[in-house]
This record gives sequence, C-alpha cells and structure tokens, in this order.
Amino acid sequence: MSEKLSVCIVGSGNWGSAIAKIIGANVVKFNNKFAERVPMYVYEEIINNQKLTNIINELHENIKYLPGHKLPENVVAVPDIIEATKDADILVFVLPHQFIRTLCVTLLGQIKPTAVGLSLIKGFDQGDGTNVELISKIIEKNLRIQCHVLMGANLANEVAEEKFCETTIGCRDKRLAPILRDLIQTPNFRVVVVEDTEAVEVCGALKNIVACAAGFVDGLGLGDNTKAAVIRLGLMEMIKFVDTFYGGSKLSTFFESCGVADLITTCYGGRNRRICEQFVKTGKTIRDLEAELLSGQKLQGPATADEVHAMLKAKNMLDKFPLFTAVQRICHEEIRPADLIDQIRNHPEHVMRVEGAV
Amino acid sequence: MSEKLSVCIVGSGNWGSAIAKIIGANVVKFNNKFAERVPMYVYEEIINNQKLTNIINELHENIKYLPGHKLPENVVAVPDIIEATKDADILVFVLPHQFIRTLCVTLLGQIKPTAVGLSLIKGFDQGDGTNVELISKIIEKNLRIQCHVLMGANLANEVAEEKFCETTIGCRDKRLAPILRDLIQTPNFRVVVVEDTEAVEVCGALKNIVACAAGFVDGLGLGDNTKAAVIRLGLMEMIKFVDTFYGGSKLSTFFESCGVADLITTCYGGRNRRICEQFVKTGKTIRDLEAELLSGQKLQGPATADEVHAMLKAKNMLDKFPLFTAVQRICHEEIRPADLIDQIRNHPEHVMRVEGAV
Repeated sequence: MSEKLSVCIVGSGNWGSAIAKIIGANVVKFNNKFAERVPMYVYEEIINNQKLTNIINELHENIKYLPGHKLPENVVAVPDIIEATKDADILVFVLPHQFIRTLCVTLLGQIKPTAVGLSLIKGFDQGDGTNVELISKIIEKNLRIQCHVLMGANLANEVAEEKFCETTIGCRDKRLAPILRDLIQTPNFRVVVVEDTEAVEVCGALKNIVACAAGFVDGLGLGDNTKAAVIRLGLMEMIKFVDTFYGGSKLSTFFESCGVADLITTCYGGRNRRICEQFVKTGKTIRDLEAELLSGQKLQGPATADEVHAMLKAKNMLDKFPLFTAVQRICHEEIRPADLIDQIRNHPEHVMRVEGAV
Repeated sequence: MSEKLSVCIVGSGNWGSAIAKIIGANVVKFNNKFAERVPMYVYEEIINNQKLTNIINELHENIKYLPGHKLPENVVAVPDIIEATKDADILVFVLPHQFIRTLCVTLLGQIKPTAVGLSLIKGFDQGDGTNVELISKIIEKNLRIQCHVLMGANLANEVAEEKFCETTIGCRDKRLAPILRDLIQTPNFRVVVVEDTEAVEVCGALKNIVACAAGFVDGLGLGDNTKAAVIRLGLMEMIKFVDTFYGGSKLSTFFESCGVADLITTCYGGRNRRICEQFVKTGKTIRDLEAELLSGQKLQGPATADEVHAMLKAKNMLDKFPLFTAVQRICHEEIRPADLIDQIRNHPEHVMRVEGAV
C-alpha cells in the first residue's frame, strides 16, 4: 500500500540505534500508517572479520554502538546510503554533525522530493565562520526538503533500557506533527510537539557551553548555590541567544525537555561537565584531555563556544553573553577558570524587574 | 536622623544569621539610607551556662546556628521580640513558619504602623485545612503591614561563606524595591527584584514536594533522564499551581533564582531529596526517618505535599497535579515509590502544542 509512510534511519551510532529500537516497534504498532520495513543506514565497519551490517541483520543487535539491546527485526541495516534512503517518506537524521553537508551532496536528487527530515543531531554547523547555522536548516537548504527536529534529556543508553523520559519535537506542520509523535512516542518515551523548531535545536547545541561552566564550578568546588546560579545564567543566555537571532519563540519552549531538562542532565552528568571539571583539577589543556579521554574526538562544548564566540564577536555582542564568552576564553586559557565568577558577577540579567523602579 | 530606615532581623537560625551578616554590612555601606544598628531577635537559649544573646553580642558569632562566621558588630542580639522590633521600618522575617501566627499576635500594635516586612520563610501555612496560605499574606493580614518576599538557591552556609549566588526578591512597590535590593545585594549575593511576589513565595514551598519525587527516583536508581523528566514535570506543576490559584504571574519569574535554580539545588542536594532516597532504600517510614535523621523535626516536603493534597482534593483537582499527588500518596504508603512513574506517564503536560494539530 503506497499510502503507508516509509521511514529511514540515517545513522546507527549509540543514539541512532536506541531510536531505531523505538521506531522499529512503533511502525509495527501503527502499521496502518507506516511501512514495516525500516532501513537503517550503517557506515560499514569490519568487526571480528564480519561486516557490521551483517552482524546487525543476523543478531539484530548493534554490538559496537548499542551492545546488549535487541533491535526489532524489521529494522534492516543497509550499508549503501542511496539504497537506504531512496524510498523514504521520513528521513531520521542521527549522525555526527560534521558529516551532514557531505551527506546532503550525496543524497540531493536521490531521495523522494516529498520526503521530510527529522533531525536528532545536536550542535551547530560553523556556517560562514561568523554565523552559526542550524543543522536542520542545512538539510532544508541543501536537500530541499522540510526538516523538523527532536531534542531532549535523552541519554541513549537509558532510552534503550526503556527508562521513563521525555523528549521535544519541533514541527510547525500540523498534519505531520501527530505522525512524528506516533512514530516516536512510547509509554516510556513521552513526546511534546512544539512549533519553535529553532529554539528546540539551539538548546541542544548551547547547553554544552553551559555544561562546561558547570564543570568549572565543580572543579573549583564552589558549591551548590554557585552551580545553580551558573546554570540559570547559562539558561538565560540560551533564551537571549534564541530571542536575538531566531526571534518569535515562546518562553514556554525552554521549559520543555529540550530546554531545562536536557540542560540539567548535561550539567550534572555528561562528558562536557566532566572534562571541564578535570581541566580545572589537572591543569591539562582541553586538547590534551580530548586526546586522553575521548581518543582525540573533539569535545562539543568548547567547539560550540568557539563558534558562538566568533558570531557574537562579529556582531559586537560579546558583552550581552558574558557566560558564553567566559567559557570560550577559559577553554583557550586566556583567563583562568577562577575568573569565571568575576565575568558574570554583573550579569545583564541582574536587573530590576519592577515597573517604574530603578 | 529619623529618615534613616531601621532594619530588624526577626530570627537567628542558620539562614537568619547568614542574612544578618549581609544586612549588617550593607547598612554600614549605605549608611545614608539605613540606621547602623540592626537588632536581631534571638530566641534565648542557654549554652554552656551562658545566654546565647550574650555570646552573640560578645563574640559576634552565633556559635549554635552559624559557627565559624563573624557577624558585623552592628548586628545586636535582642532576646525581647517587642524591644527588637519596636523601632523597625523593615522587618526581615526569617524563622520557622510554624511560629508566624503567634508572632503576629505578639507584635500586633507594638510595631511601627508604617513598617514593611520581608519574609525569607519557605513553606505554606496550613490555612483552614483546604486552602494553604502564604506566610507573607498571614503577616500582611495579622500584622496589617505590607510584606514582600525573598527566595532563591541560597543554602545558608554557602551564603555565609560568601560563595557567589543569586536570589529573587518579590516586591511590587517601586519605591521600596531598590531599597530592599540595596539592603540585600553584595558582589557575591546578586539580587533580581520581580513583581510576582506570590509566584516567588509559592516556588519556595512547592520545590520541596518535587525534591521528594527526585529522591524517590534516586532511591529507585532510575537514572538521569528520568530524574530530569520528574524535575521538569514538577516544575510544570509548580507553574500550573501558581497559574491556577494566584493567576497573573509571568512565566519568566520561574526562570529566576527562586524558580529553576532553587529547584535544581533542592533536587540534587538538600534533605528532602536525601531522606526520600533513604525512604526507598531502607523501607523505613518517613516518620521513622524524621525521628532518626532530623531529631523528630518534620521534613518539609511531605508536610507541604499533605497541605497541597488537602487543597487540591477539596477543589477536585488532584488529576491536574499527578506528581504532587503521587508524592503525597507515596509518603503515606498508599502506593509504592515504584508506582511514581505510572502516575505521571500520561501527564497533562504531554500534549500537542502545534496549532491545529491533534
């Protein structure tokens, strides 16, 4: 039946595999709406002399990126990106953000023109160097399709373990919104769909800068009050950033899972917090810690702080975002972690909010 | 000079002593606005055969409730409540909430009729049993003065140690707002004054219910995603509660220190969280844990949950606050801690927020 929507999962890492578990089950549950077969694009790797795609299709388990969890049998690993995506009505993008531009070049003209995207990718694209670009906008521009987003307090392993959590989908299309909800929601993975797609996506990137600041506070042993203040001021700068560059968002969106909830988990757990705590405690550089603890992979918070810093500097707005700015400068060792508090002591948020008072 | 405002601190526990340190210094700093002598009402106790007031006035240290911190010498411990308060223009209330009604009876007619109050007291008054009352409103009604509030992520010991933090003052009076700010703000204790006094005060009480839920999640080992979801849903019920019973607040007030910041510290540190975690892990009753760990003192979260539950039940609104309701029932062992998630799985917040979509 051609009216059934085909879903393809583009990516198969930790988060991609966890969401495949949910999507694979939901297309069966709603098999009046969705085609049962869910191709999952898998970047081919050889593991113990076997292709990863073969392992996934035989064992129904991504033994490299989500070991210990069975994937539904209707999720089919496909090593050819064109083959995986060609029939899809819904493309779920869940791969590292640095691959997105190449991917779009590869897929342009090869996918259904009516397809829509759902991006689970956190982080900005560097854009032209002075304007960060949203990953969903890159997909929209370069692939010429609509692209919606999904972000939230969703550590992949806990989602795979079916522990209760929430997520936020940003989608302005009133026809598609309930379809995406049905594709994603389970009794343990609760969905709220909001219209503010930009705010949802920006939160997913900026939270990592705030987590660095939280890590510095932990490393310095400044205590619970200070940590709460730093997280709050970070949240205020996230709201200010969205308001300044993507105006028109509702304040309530920042109370969704993508906002306050994801920020909390990232500032209490998460590797940005942890490595920035180590940065203070060990005196090693961020680069050394990346080499040592992340096999040379780049930590997202400092990278995002750099991208945001370049943009704010070009627009002469650094003073409106003192916490973001301080994190960038601390990561580059232009100021010390202990200087963080002096940088935010007279924060623009510390104002009188009583009409007529000064 | 009679135009200088006299300030009295009514209470001298941990938090009262910490704020006395700040107020004592600020009245000297702004001695054009405030009288230098700050009487602090101290409930007299005998410690090592000495009166606590004498110890404080000789050592300038509250050795019982804030040991290790010098109080400014212009803060003067006074054991007589009438004597302490009679000349005050600003009464800073910082004592356990169960004493407030008796205090008002004692002070009525004895204080300056032009005095104003600033309440630092967290928690509700039980009211008539089916309507909780705000402490500031009890002061306003029973003492016939204006009463403003101060709440935030302000663990007293960290404030006394002058670690950086923020606080929120709720005050609608545009003339008084900057005066209260100057009385309270320091380089390490940053003040935002907002008009939503009720929202500020309600946050300070309801956060303890949410902290109980966070403690259950910790005790059950449900992980970071679930904890973030529970804290977020708790915040949503706090907002809903204010909106329902004290309409007209701004959403932005919940982003102040009194809202999201205080909630975070309370749900990660704090004794409500800790004892509710122990409740799950040990199987002991809340009452037994209070006896064992708090010398029989009542834990605020379960008590507030009871007060809120009685109010919501009388108004037939329990289903609109499933998290608050679940906490109350778990504390009374009507349901198990493990039932918490089932109670909030289909939370009224899990809705479609896209215009025209269903």
